[in-house]
Amino acid sequence: MQKFRFLTAGESHGKALTAIIEGVPAGFSIDEDFINEELKRRQSGYGRGGRMKIETDRVEITSGVRFGKTLGSPITLVIKNKDFENWQKIMSSSADDLTDEKSFTTCRPGHADYAGSVKYGHQDLRNILERSSARKTAIEVAVGAVAKLILKEFGITADSRVLQIGNSQSDFNAEIDKAREEGITLGGRFEVVFKNLPVGLGSYVHYDRKLDGKIAQMVMSIPAVKSVSIGDGEDAHRLSGREFHDEMFLENGKIVRKTNHAGGLEGGMTNGEDLIVRANMKPIPTMRSPLNTVDLANLTETTAHFERSDVCAVEACAVIAEARIACAIVDEFLLKFGGDSLEEMQTNSI
Amino acid sequence: MQKFRFLTAGESHGKALTAIIEGVPAGFSIDEDFINEELKRRQSGYGRGGRMKIETDRVEITSGVRFGKTLGSPITLVIKNKDFENWQKIMSSSADDLTDEKSFTTCRPGHADYAGSVKYGHQDLRNILERSSARKTAIEVAVGAVAKLILKEFGITADSRVLQIGNSQSDFNAEIDKAREEGITLGGRFEVVFKNLPVGLGSYVHYDRKLDGKIAQMVMSIPAVKSVSIGDGEDAHRLSGREFHDEMFLENGKIVRKTNHAGGLEGGMTNGEDLIVRANMKPIPTMRSPLNTVDLANLTETTAHFERSDVCAVEACAVIAEARIACAIVDEFLLKFGGDSLEEMQTNSI
Amino acid sequence: MQKFRFLTAGESHGKALTAIIEGVPAGFSIDEDFINEELKRRQSGYGRGGRMKIETDRVEITSGVRFGKTLGSPITLVIKNKDFENWQKIMSSSADDLTDEKSFTTCRPGHADYAGSVKYGHQDLRNILERSSARKTAIEVAVGAVAKLILKEFGITADSRVLQIGNSQSDFNAEIDKAREEGITLGGRFEVVFKNLPVGLGSYVHYDRKLDGKIAQMVMSIPAVKSVSIGDGEDAHRLSGREFHDEMFLENGKIVRKTNHAGGLEGGMTNGEDLIVRANMKPIPTMRSPLNTVDLANLTETTAHFERSDVCAVEACAVIAEARIACAIVDEFLLKFGGDSLEEMQTNSI
Amino acid sequence: MQKFRFLTAGESHGKALTAIIEGVPAGFSIDEDFINEELKRRQSGYGRGGRMKIETDRVEITSGVRFGKTLGSPITLVIKNKDFENWQKIMSSSADDLTDEKSFTTCRPGHADYAGSVKYGHQDLRNILERSSARKTAIEVAVGAVAKLILKEFGITADSRVLQIGNSQSDFNAEIDKAREEGITLGGRFEVVFKNLPVGLGSYVHYDRKLDGKIAQMVMSIPAVKSVSIGDGEDAHRLSGREFHDEMFLENGKIVRKTNHAGGLEGGMTNGEDLIVRANMKPIPTMRSPLNTVDLANLTETTAHFERSDVCAVEACAVIAEARIACAIVDEFLLKFGGDSLEEMQTNSI
Repeated sequence: MQKFRFLTAGESHGKALTAIIEGVPAGFSIDEDFINEELKRRQSGYGRGGRMKIETDRVEITSGVRFGKTLGSPITLVIKNKDFENWQKIMSSSADDLTDEKSFTTCRPGHADYAGSVKYGHQDLRNILERSSARKTAIEVAVGAVAKLILKEFGITADSRVLQIGNSQSDFNAEIDKAREEGITLGGRFEVVFKNLPVGLGSYVHYDRKLDGKIAQMVMSIPAVKSVSIGDGEDAHRLSGREFHDEMFLENGKIVRKTNHAGGLEGGMTNGEDLIVRANMKPIPTMRSPLNTVDLANLTETTAHFERSDVCAVEACAVIAEARIACAIVDEFLLKFGGDSLEEMQTNSI
Repeated sequence: MQKFRFLTAGESHGKALTAIIEGVPAGFSIDEDFINEELKRRQSGYGRGGRMKIETDRVEITSGVRFGKTLGSPITLVIKNKDFENWQKIMSSSADDLTDEKSFTTCRPGHADYAGSVKYGHQDLRNILERSSARKTAIEVAVGAVAKLILKEFGITADSRVLQIGNSQSDFNAEIDKAREEGITLGGRFEVVFKNLPVGLGSYVHYDRKLDGKIAQMVMSIPAVKSVSIGDGEDAHRLSGREFHDEMFLENGKIVRKTNHAGGLEGGMTNGEDLIVRANMKPIPTMRSPLNTVDLANLTETTAHFERSDVCAVEACAVIAEARIACAIVDEFLLKFGGDSLEEMQTNSI
Repeated sequence: MQKFRFLTAGESHGKALTAIIEGVPAGFSIDEDFINEELKRRQSGYGRGGRMKIETDRVEITSGVRFGKTLGSPITLVIKNKDFENWQKIMSSSADDLTDEKSFTTCRPGHADYAGSVKYGHQDLRNILERSSARKTAIEVAVGAVAKLILKEFGITADSRVLQIGNSQSDFNAEIDKAREEGITLGGRFEVVFKNLPVGLGSYVHYDRKLDGKIAQMVMSIPAVKSVSIGDGEDAHRLSGREFHDEMFLENGKIVRKTNHAGGLEGGMTNGEDLIVRANMKPIPTMRSPLNTVDLANLTETTAHFERSDVCAVEACAVIAEARIACAIVDEFLLKFGGDSLEEMQTNSI
Repeated sequence: MQKFRFLTAGESHGKALTAIIEGVPAGFSIDEDFINEELKRRQSGYGRGGRMKIETDRVEITSGVRFGKTLGSPITLVIKNKDFENWQKIMSSSADDLTDEKSFTTCRPGHADYAGSVKYGHQDLRNILERSSARKTAIEVAVGAVAKLILKEFGITADSRVLQIGNSQSDFNAEIDKAREEGITLGGRFEVVFKNLPVGLGSYVHYDRKLDGKIAQMVMSIPAVKSVSIGDGEDAHRLSGREFHDEMFLENGKIVRKTNHAGGLEGGMTNGEDLIVRANMKPIPTMRSPLNTVDLANLTETTAHFERSDVCAVEACAVIAEARIACAIVDEFLLKFGGDSLEEMQTNSI
């Protein structure tokens, strides 16, 4: 993460989510519709709660793009929280608006509430919830959409699919309906695939230049993801060397493989095969059937605060993972091929 | 990775492995024997090959430590390659010694060979093998030992254990013996546990400040690791929200949990429970029973180059993971508590 | 620049300037009026052009602050460009609005135009001017104001003054009036002083941890600054060791100095004396009396494009330098004292 | 400083100075003789003390280079301190060797002693002197020599010269002889010039991407440098816009300039003219005729500790500055042109 660098900001019910991306070369087409499509993909999927219906996220670009092309200067992306009008006072930046409306003090297990309150000294857990909420992934998906637009110019594509929801590997909607009725939540497993990557992104020369490590950070830091693997990594410990490694053959003078257990990464570098990443998402902690917990204000046992939430968000999580991995890849891409404009990069990457 | 920063260097059969660590406060005791013990742990474990017997790694500290205590200045760690005398010409830095002895051109599937040769333009794959080799993890273990010595002053301890080798969850040695006879190699699954961490290392406020992400990068970038999970992350997708999340209770006025599925991390922060990381290591690609591959020099099909290797190195891998995770944690620790000396840190962290 | 990290964005006539600051601990009071006062200081000073009268910059905080206090989450600062309504089409992010209104191709010597067009491949130099303009320093001043608010809690204050304009060390306004009449521009020298810094910010242990170096980067990268010195650095080469170095004495058992040639920095660290930084600003390149230059569109000699500009902006430059240096100092401060909240920092820094 | 990253380590009388450079592409020739020549240049110059005669620094490369060419892996440079045999016990890393021989407690004004002792809690100022000493610049010159070797492949050259010593702009040796007799020390002013740089290194798009800022950090963080300017920056405040800016003309269809007040940097980018950096070095603080100071052990007034030192080291300082600036430039170069090997870079940079 060096050439394509970005910061994101924004509270769940604050005025807006914002991102600044620095390091995008000049001359790339930025298609707002594509970004909005990605935002929509994040909001879709069976099992989402009420908020997804309230808000259709739309990006606004306030810098770095002119007449549809990147200028080379930092790009600002803004997603307004449409719900903000109802939260204006509650989330106000002004000391004059101080109120304890919507404040709460009962920790939600599985969330940042407890550790966050110890760390930052917040009594009102609202101050933690607002940023630790997965709402912030909307702007990360927008950043990832910019990364994808860059990669698209070089023929690189991304896709994802859900592999499992709860214990089911096929009938996802039924599984989700059942969980909703029970007032519980479900996690799942998903897969992200990038195609058409050049050989040699990432490097074995230093631990922090390995692309598998960078991708693992990107995916594991998505809220609720608890496991990340590359290719058939979940089974890597069970297979022998003979079974796991992808032998190399020649076909019409070109090197080919018949398998891709390695998921496209050897020695921390892309090897020309599809890049495959899988991850497990835990069930969302906020449930209608609440968990036992503790009220930090008076140290008494109670049940967890419930805030409108989803039953299952694995599809969304896969979209977020696509976006995050796109950021890791585009950074390697920019580092490898150099160049300050699309034109220069195209010349360099031939 | 910001305050405790380090670079490592060194080829597998080069003169020495070296690391420089910058950012260690003054006044910490650096026990060379402890570092050497850690190096020995890395070299141990059933299933290791011949080299482990040749070399007993020992660290030499050439800067940053005086009379057993850190000075606050960068620490240099050196591990000489004892085998170097036999490789002096082959690995010489001088153009005068140019030779093609020990050079090879047949890609080893599962290794960095193919992608590395495309990336760096090396014809002699020796130029890739020498750095992509897991030999370099020796100096990383030394760096991690320094991190552990810092954490030890605050009562934080690390441990690890092998959970599975191949398909066996108990009789590891028999499994390894069998593999050796068959000329194949085995991977496995292991677990690392850190105890006594303060609440609030890492943060939910920005994706790249989440400790789970940093740990995932650290572990996934270990050679041969293909899957990383936090706590019971491997099963996170299968369990319902009711089953997975660790409820909170009171015991004598203190918050307690009866489970630790989260592996000590909620919202990307330590929550006071044990930090638990599990990972899957693929089998080592270099096998006596060789894989089909391609000779890059003349583009013909052949079988892979064999270089002295281990049958199974999962125990070593767990030790390396301990070291890597210690580096991630110590960085968070230094950032959280500040201070330029042990004494100042002790005051701050009370 | 590690703990207090920020990105800024925005074109001179774009919709808005934006900054995201990540790394501010929780619990700090953010006084919008103070930020606006700083923005006003940047816009003031004798010799400014028309734009300063059009726009009174005002900050809007859209994340990271609630009820007047920092949350610990990233802070977004936005300054709307009031002039944008007149530039909406010209600076549109949409390809549909493509126009060559306000485009130009004659390089302005002293500006980024020439190198920028070669680097980014822009034919329309408007694409460079918009970001290379000093307009962007408005949002940097807002970021610096946040840094100052943090430092203020620890009693640290900043101030600056103009030392020289053109050849005059006193009658600045007369000098500026004269230049305006002649259609030329003037630079100057200024001084920034920070008081009440703790001993030991920065470090000698590694070149990139020296605070003098960080400050030099911060100040030299301000548009139009061409020389930076610490303390009496401008005369450092002329004075002997006996004259330059600040001897140490005891007064009531406390170490005191009678001079401060070193400007408060020894060995790259604050030494408890006032931190003094001086800098030279070159005259603004855009002049009514234009410079000879080249039109890049047709490679003909011509005179430079003139865009509304200031005669002299040294006072503003000093305010920007204050802001920049505050950022460098606050980062050291956060690194040294650690802590995730004001309260924790106050405990640590006693 | 992102792609060409390095850490240096080593105490003045420790076993060795060490550097690790990560990020050098494969295939560059590393000429040890050239590095040694640069080390010799650093040790030369009229006015140097005894140590320069004791030690002729020589580099040893222990990783990253094979048969005279870079491998793409991290490069380790080692300079042994020849004096170490006399300091073995005094600078030992082992607690068993604890001794107070060569310890001292009287602060040397102008050095890191005072602030360093407060910061790191060292009573024995030897623990500070050893790292804050300019001895460490030897290894930085070696790192810079590697940077120069990379730049050399693209025709970029560096040079420097002394402009002033004390109050003399010509008869330097006489000035130094006089100072030596008086027991005082002298600083000076020097100039570094890089030729043949491509247009567009650095950028105006974000303050921390401006090359002038990076260079200023690099030079200001050299021990004893107190002022840095680009081109005619020392006079930038005195000249009008008409006088300072470098007008552009056409000559045989090519853009030319008749002046270079800007020192080759406009908008923080190289503009194709010579890159010119000037700096002022303060006189070395350690003098035979000692300064008034304080003994920190017993808080009494005294005179400063004297350790063998130079009368004047401005020539050496210029060589160090060359090395440092080369590091800043090579990083920009690698970022701009991308590539993982010399061959790839050559293709990209055409």
